[in-house]
Amino acid sequence: MVDPVEVQEIFGQVSSLLDAGETAEAINILQDLHPADSSEILYELSAEHQVTVLREMTDEETADMLEEMDEDEMAEVVQNLSVGELADILDEMEPDMAADLLGELGEEQTAALLEEMEESEDVAPLLAYPEDTAGGIMNTPRHMLRRLMTAAQAMAFLREHYADEHDLYYLYVLDRHRRLVGIVSLRALVLALPEQTLDEIMDRDVLTVRADTDQEEVARLLARYNLLALPVVDEEDHLVGLVSVDDVVDILEEEATEDIYRLAQVSGDAEIFSPIHRAVGSRLPWLVVNMGTAFLASSVVAFFEGTIAQAALLAAFMPIVAGQGGNAGTQTMTIMIRSLALGEIELSDTWRALLHEVTVGLIHGLVIGLSVGLIAWLWKGNPMLGMVIGVAMLGNLLVASLAGVLIPMLLRRLKIDPALASGVFVTTATDVLGFGLFLGLATYYIAWLR
Amino acid sequence: MVDPVEVQEIFGQVSSLLDAGETAEAINILQDLHPADSSEILYELSAEHQVTVLREMTDEETADMLEEMDEDEMAEVVQNLSVGELADILDEMEPDMAADLLGELGEEQTAALLEEMEESEDVAPLLAYPEDTAGGIMNTPRHMLRRLMTAAQAMAFLREHYADEHDLYYLYVLDRHRRLVGIVSLRALVLALPEQTLDEIMDRDVLTVRADTDQEEVARLLARYNLLALPVVDEEDHLVGLVSVDDVVDILEEEATEDIYRLAQVSGDAEIFSPIHRAVGSRLPWLVVNMGTAFLASSVVAFFEGTIAQAALLAAFMPIVAGQGGNAGTQTMTIMIRSLALGEIELSDTWRALLHEVTVGLIHGLVIGLSVGLIAWLWKGNPMLGMVIGVAMLGNLLVASLAGVLIPMLLRRLKIDPALASGVFVTTATDVLGFGLFLGLATYYIAWLR
Repeated sequence: MVDPVEVQEIFGQVSSLLDAGETAEAINILQDLHPADSSEILYELSAEHQVTVLREMTDEETADMLEEMDEDEMAEVVQNLSVGELADILDEMEPDMAADLLGELGEEQTAALLEEMEESEDVAPLLAYPEDTAGGIMNTPRHMLRRLMTAAQAMAFLREHYADEHDLYYLYVLDRHRRLVGIVSLRALVLALPEQTLDEIMDRDVLTVRADTDQEEVARLLARYNLLALPVVDEEDHLVGLVSVDDVVDILEEEATEDIYRLAQVSGDAEIFSPIHRAVGSRLPWLVVNMGTAFLASSVVAFFEGTIAQAALLAAFMPIVAGQGGNAGTQTMTIMIRSLALGEIELSDTWRALLHEVTVGLIHGLVIGLSVGLIAWLWKGNPMLGMVIGVAMLGNLLVASLAGVLIPMLLRRLKIDPALASGVFVTTATDVLGFGLFLGLATYYIAWLR
Repeated sequence: MVDPVEVQEIFGQVSSLLDAGETAEAINILQDLHPADSSEILYELSAEHQVTVLREMTDEETADMLEEMDEDEMAEVVQNLSVGELADILDEMEPDMAADLLGELGEEQTAALLEEMEESEDVAPLLAYPEDTAGGIMNTPRHMLRRLMTAAQAMAFLREHYADEHDLYYLYVLDRHRRLVGIVSLRALVLALPEQTLDEIMDRDVLTVRADTDQEEVARLLARYNLLALPVVDEEDHLVGLVSVDDVVDILEEEATEDIYRLAQVSGDAEIFSPIHRAVGSRLPWLVVNMGTAFLASSVVAFFEGTIAQAALLAAFMPIVAGQGGNAGTQTMTIMIRSLALGEIELSDTWRALLHEVTVGLIHGLVIGLSVGLIAWLWKGNPMLGMVIGVAMLGNLLVASLAGVLIPMLLRRLKIDPALASGVFVTTATDVLGFGLFLGLATYYIAWLR
């Protein structure tokens, strides 16, 4: 457990040792690190060194390191291993992580690996579930107990069968039809008298999810109820898997990143150093969509070309109309989208939100409208110009409030992620209506503006 | 454990029962819920009903509900209780939550409450730490054991002294100077043979933090190393507190929300239904800053007023210049900011990021420049107009790439949060340089544009 700067230093050391052929020493350094750190170093090594390291470390050590990586990183690191080598490593991995890795490989390779693995029965069923559902992040349940066992018996049973189990947070108590009837936390087990039965200490009011529950929902349930693990059951309450708290933080960060990127109009899981074609693929389509909407704003302006020809000074105020409207709309829209994502508001709050935001927009509009109007008057020495731009700003900020509330709500209603598309519509609304109002007023009062 | 819609329904039920004076039944319903749910209902009730409910429920039940709320929500709910009543409830709360609540109250009231409390010695020391540090989120450590105890003795000890301890994840093993020498997970304790000593099963390589460590750093460490709790120690390794995994998810969501809001130029912890003056206070200052930068762009356009007077059709293309430049700049900037926040890149990656983004910007610029140029040519029937706007778009998208990388990196270097101010500078850069390039080129080729 070291800080990022140290990881970089140790990477340099390990890399030099491997270059110099001092493999044993390099391996020693890696073995002393937490897998969260050694996995970062492993990933940064050259492909050649990666294979050297993976062959020298035990399958369990390798499995621990791989489990700290993203799916695509895992797949990259293991690509030069033989089927036999990789199957041994997969056997040591948590089933959900093994399934994630297999999901990255080709169908043929996956089949060969499952054939070769010893514990494929834990992993194969997980391949059927989409990655972003409870099924995609759950592990095959193990430590399952019967309710008439005593605490002491349960501990002896665990010692015998599950000594190497990492995700041991709760014990799951099943009836003879393998239906989940209760859970016992390790805390309750430790605090129980040795002769108490699980039946006496178990919690029967168990929150469960289905395999197709969205992973974000699962993460929020775990967080809301401060749980360390959540059982996944089928329609008949048979236990089919367990999602544990380890995964929650990653999921919530992933979802936050996705929302942030969607708000900035970047698709998919962009990373700063994604291959160029993927970077372009995740951003250019949005620029093209925006080009379309910008031409819409553009044609509004073109409609008033005659007015601008008569009073070219109007053009100078266009960036202010577009800028302020866009910014105010983005503020409202972002607060709406985040509140929807965190479950703080519902569709039924639309009117209340609208009233709130229109009030805020009115105050902003008065302050900004008066300021811009006054500056315009003083700058260009034309009071009518000040009036026109001032009123246009007020109108534009009200449009920003309306669009900022209504567009996310409408998208939510249509079951489209508001973060995905609100930005395009909100800025189109503020641009088109903002320019229309400003240049329309200017056309009406053109005699005073020339 | 019910879904949000159900919570709303139950709220209606509870509220009507309280109106009808059927308090016992209302309390029954609340007692059957998970505190995460009943606390929401409690918060929504009228002040009068809140007092009724709090007086009917046990101090422990009330404490559990309060612990699910934010600091300001807690303070609101308890405002009508007497010092004696509140002190009893505070005694039942987790010390870190009790400290958070006291932090919301006045100095005088806090002193009176601490005087009245029985367990004030657990809470008082926590009041000294800033809210967003490890000290502000830690709890006073309890279950501390000696290393020569056996597993069986440790369990008996826990049963005797800590049967009501919620946050029981690890046992902390201290030497006779109360210095932390190791930790034992509950999992290790359960799997140990009863006669093994803690010394044999404890983990000596313990990651610790100081009380002044930033809460975001603490949350990331817990997440990175999949820990359930993290000990907080002073300079001499004395254990002073424990941060547990419950807090991590809230912190990470809080930090993600803060980043999202900062990117959208909303300050502080805005919520959709904040009081109007707070909503305006968190947004209007940003609009004013943007007004300043918009006037900068505006004066660039004003500089070319003569050109626009000769060829008013140029004004129609200004929204496209501003829009595409702003969008592309925001895309790059957002990816940079998120990558910095997640620790995926460092300052030393500036050149690599610049090269990557300029390549992406070049491709975007060629595609967008050619498209806009072609459309402009066909729309207005003027090939020179197409050339001017096309070249200007290419230039503007390259500016967007440069600004999108360099501005966040510069702010990080100056130790200013990049999320806070990048947006203003990036759009100023794309607006000013974009308009300058477009209108500058147009001025040069004005003979072909009239």
